[in-house]
Amino acid sequence: MPPPLWLMRQAGRYLPEYQAVRKQAGSFWTMCMTPELAVEVTLQPVRRFDFDAAILFSDILMIPHALGQKVRFEDGTGPIIEPLRAVEELDRNEENWESRLAPVYSAMANARRALAADKAMIGFAGAPWTLAAYMIEGRGTAEQRDARLFAYQNPQEFAQLLDILVGATARHLARQIESGADAVQVFDSWAGGLPPVMFQQWVVEPTKRLVAKLHTGHPRARVIGFPRGATQWGLEAYAGETGVDAMGIDTATSLHWAASALGKRVVVQGNLDPLALVAGGTVLERGVSDILGAMRGTPFIFNLGHGVLPATPVEHVAKLVELVRSAA
Amino acid sequence: MPPPLWLMRQAGRYLPEYQAVRKQAGSFWTMCMTPELAVEVTLQPVRRFDFDAAILFSDILMIPHALGQKVRFEDGTGPIIEPLRAVEELDRNEENWESRLAPVYSAMANARRALAADKAMIGFAGAPWTLAAYMIEGRGTAEQRDARLFAYQNPQEFAQLLDILVGATARHLARQIESGADAVQVFDSWAGGLPPVMFQQWVVEPTKRLVAKLHTGHPRARVIGFPRGATQWGLEAYAGETGVDAMGIDTATSLHWAASALGKRVVVQGNLDPLALVAGGTVLERGVSDILGAMRGTPFIFNLGHGVLPATPVEHVAKLVELVRSAA
Repeated sequence: MPPPLWLMRQAGRYLPEYQAVRKQAGSFWTMCMTPELAVEVTLQPVRRFDFDAAILFSDILMIPHALGQKVRFEDGTGPIIEPLRAVEELDRNEENWESRLAPVYSAMANARRALAADKAMIGFAGAPWTLAAYMIEGRGTAEQRDARLFAYQNPQEFAQLLDILVGATARHLARQIESGADAVQVFDSWAGGLPPVMFQQWVVEPTKRLVAKLHTGHPRARVIGFPRGATQWGLEAYAGETGVDAMGIDTATSLHWAASALGKRVVVQGNLDPLALVAGGTVLERGVSDILGAMRGTPFIFNLGHGVLPATPVEHVAKLVELVRSAA
Repeated sequence: MPPPLWLMRQAGRYLPEYQAVRKQAGSFWTMCMTPELAVEVTLQPVRRFDFDAAILFSDILMIPHALGQKVRFEDGTGPIIEPLRAVEELDRNEENWESRLAPVYSAMANARRALAADKAMIGFAGAPWTLAAYMIEGRGTAEQRDARLFAYQNPQEFAQLLDILVGATARHLARQIESGADAVQVFDSWAGGLPPVMFQQWVVEPTKRLVAKLHTGHPRARVIGFPRGATQWGLEAYAGETGVDAMGIDTATSLHWAASALGKRVVVQGNLDPLALVAGGTVLERGVSDILGAMRGTPFIFNLGHGVLPATPVEHVAKLVELVRSAA
């Protein structure tokens, strides 16, 4: 049996039909906030490639938006938000969150209805640490220096921010599940590079609280954690302590190692190099067969180690699907 | 006995006396290429803080410069080089390399003479993979996508480029040792994020050939490897196979783990978070005492996990020295 297969950022710029909707919408944010458009681009890659799951087209910055931070998307530079000056600025009213994010839950409900019953519908959110870093820095940065320094210099205020984010993220994931999501993924895109003590405090512990909170109302909610860039030590702590059901593994981590170290506790998901999908040919074939070989006999979801790149030829994605599906 | 102590980028912008020389020189490159200025900034931090080692003020882009690539430094953006189009463009004449890099070797000889006999003089070079990535991309990038795609799509030409860099880097390190360096550090700044097979092919194997080549003429040359961002799996392969005597460990890696997994094969060097040095206070004190605790009884060099940041208060560096020196 081939493993289930979907790709992070499978709804994206490499698809001509996505580009057409993007052009029509005028902006990335409009696509996220207009349910018909979000549903359309969510379903496009499943239609074209018959993936086993759709992931809702949305953005991790929905939470800062729900909390009242100003978010804008600029072509080329990625999203920009007004840097947070004080935790008190944040809007803690859950009804306001709900009304700001209503289009996301509509899109989820409509996408789940439109998707075939044998396909999984995945919701998602940014993890508390990654969101905190974004909210403090105002934009994506290579090393999150301002956020890390803020956390060192203001440990109490930083802990308070993480707490707010645990609550808001748990609520956002719960609402996605109530709207039809079969599973949710928590993206900790900036979990890499943290000292081990900080990884424990800022990644493992908030994620554990987030999963516990989500399970309070939704005990059977399936959660995929993705602490990108984590060390092996960090991945073991994450698998052992957070309560997630599955873990996304990035491209730098050995799947042989992940199968034996994590595979008994969580379903492993990953980890083809997105650049191997751009390159195609023997690089792609070898990449796929190495992964299938490493994961034989272990519960596994085939995915990339990071999102699909805009430069990816669509025929390479079709080839990937063919390679994975023809696996014994 | 406290461990020996030096800091990556200890000669740098956080020091007012460095800023004064930088202003006088007019450019970073002029400082590198004017032996009196390079020697002066090399010695400044040892004078001020009594570090146990000086590292020659220079740059990893000396090798692309030696090979005939045009290198320029722009304030704010970091160094820029003309992206390599074909390996044949590179100047393979070793006499040309020697004459282009003569100021570096003069600076090394003069710095060694000026430095107290009980202080170690360290030379350095970029590792082949990191240099190849820089030469292909033309500038520092977060994920080296163009270089990795080039390597996937042109494996033979990429292997040829790594071979040239192994040769040029071995020669550059040998000339620094002949000029007075007591040890050399190989910076693989972009070793992180590579799939395990690529880490083996692009980081471990070229470094192994580099160390072997250097040891041919200089069997007792001491080499510190710094594969920044490597996974634990990668660090073990690097420690076991490359032949380096010591290894720099970045901030994300547990020193407890490094002491037990690597400490029998190599001297471990690291890994205080540079941001803990910016923050100071209890964050700095706890960081130092955790490291000293983890490394008790293991051969060890105290350093940061990455370079000193420009925002670092000089009094925090003085405090760090005091904390390390007062260790039992």
